[in-house]
Amino acid sequence: MITMRGESERTFTPKGWATRQRIIEAASRLILENGLEAATLEEIQAAAGASASQLYHYFEDKSELLRAVIEHQTDSVLGTHRVILERLDSFEALEEWRDMVVSMLDAQNCVGGCPLGSLASGLAESDARARTALAESFERWQDLLREGLETMRQRGELRDDANVGDLSTSVLAAVQGGLLLSQTRRDSASVRVALDASIAYLRTLRPERALGHAGTATRVGG
Amino acid sequence: MITMRGESERTFTPKGWATRQRIIEAASRLILENGLEAATLEEIQAAAGASASQLYHYFEDKSELLRAVIEHQTDSVLGTHRVILERLDSFEALEEWRDMVVSMLDAQNCVGGCPLGSLASGLAESDARARTALAESFERWQDLLREGLETMRQRGELRDDANVGDLSTSVLAAVQGGLLLSQTRRDSASVRVALDASIAYLRTLRPERALGHAGTATRVGG
Repeated sequence: MITMRGESERTFTPKGWATRQRIIEAASRLILENGLEAATLEEIQAAAGASASQLYHYFEDKSELLRAVIEHQTDSVLGTHRVILERLDSFEALEEWRDMVVSMLDAQNCVGGCPLGSLASGLAESDARARTALAESFERWQDLLREGLETMRQRGELRDDANVGDLSTSVLAAVQGGLLLSQTRRDSASVRVALDASIAYLRTLRPERALGHAGTATRVGG
Repeated sequence: MITMRGESERTFTPKGWATRQRIIEAASRLILENGLEAATLEEIQAAAGASASQLYHYFEDKSELLRAVIEHQTDSVLGTHRVILERLDSFEALEEWRDMVVSMLDAQNCVGGCPLGSLASGLAESDARARTALAESFERWQDLLREGLETMRQRGELRDDANVGDLSTSVLAAVQGGLLLSQTRRDSASVRVALDASIAYLRTLRPERALGHAGTATRVGG
């Protein structure tokens, strides 16, 4: 029997934390590359080089391990995006972010799509705590986008009446939907086109005085 | 042993086809409402009121059943969307389509998100044939959008140089990403806001002469 313990009460040695982290990373990679269904506890053990008793020592059940995977992937995804999104203050920075999203997907040959999007889609109906955790991950991602767009608004890159809350929702939806299409099609063009459209729309929300230097050159439809 | 048979060679009695269809519909509902992981063959049997031998009579393996589910959900989703998308010729029709997407999600309390998006996310890495089938489903969906936008372009609702191919990609990404965010957040606002932004962007691509009657009234950021 596994002793029921609250996640917050766990204490391990430094070596124990390292083993726990190794299991989380192996599970994260396995889920990303092979899908949630393929990531059985047996597969995760094999990938992490850990025994079943080790797995149950560090995680009460699969649901707790999955929440640790969500936390790990949230830190990983947001850590990467934060580098660019925290200094989002211009259309050039937005385009740099789009290029990073496309490059990262190309580097993994479109396999796995978005780690957070895939977890959300796979767990939303089967694990209420996982769904709540992923809703929070999306919230944090959207916060980064909203703060960046707010900076652009304050710098006069967007009109005063631009609704940066709604705009950040639509940009996050574009990146999520684009990554899903690209994952399914094995072609990063979809996410690039989706983000191009989001950025093109944002360009239409520049103040009148800023329209001059790129208005007519805006790419149409992409 | 299950005899290996090509899917196209299958022949059943009318009653047999009805039983097969009942299994497909039960599996589709189970996957949508509880997620792919929960839809074990045992659960599908129970939901369809079918025996294991019946399941193996109609489907060679789980992968063949899943492809039948993809076909069923593609017909169902595209059948619903086609009703509006095939007469997509104006911004009013686009808004009607957005309202339909939001109403359908509300009717299911955001559970399941998009049946096709969820299947794509869950199967893309574990079942190559399923991924290919779902890429084709997305292609057909995008075709409906592209043809509708092309009609709008020819009617003068969009500029002659509007790239309806890329635009249809970005609208499909918006609906997929919006549905995933709404599913995770249990709030249809995300998909509504994402589609509002797509439509607002399309409005910026109207020919000059058409800008007069709604240009300044365009909602900002949503």
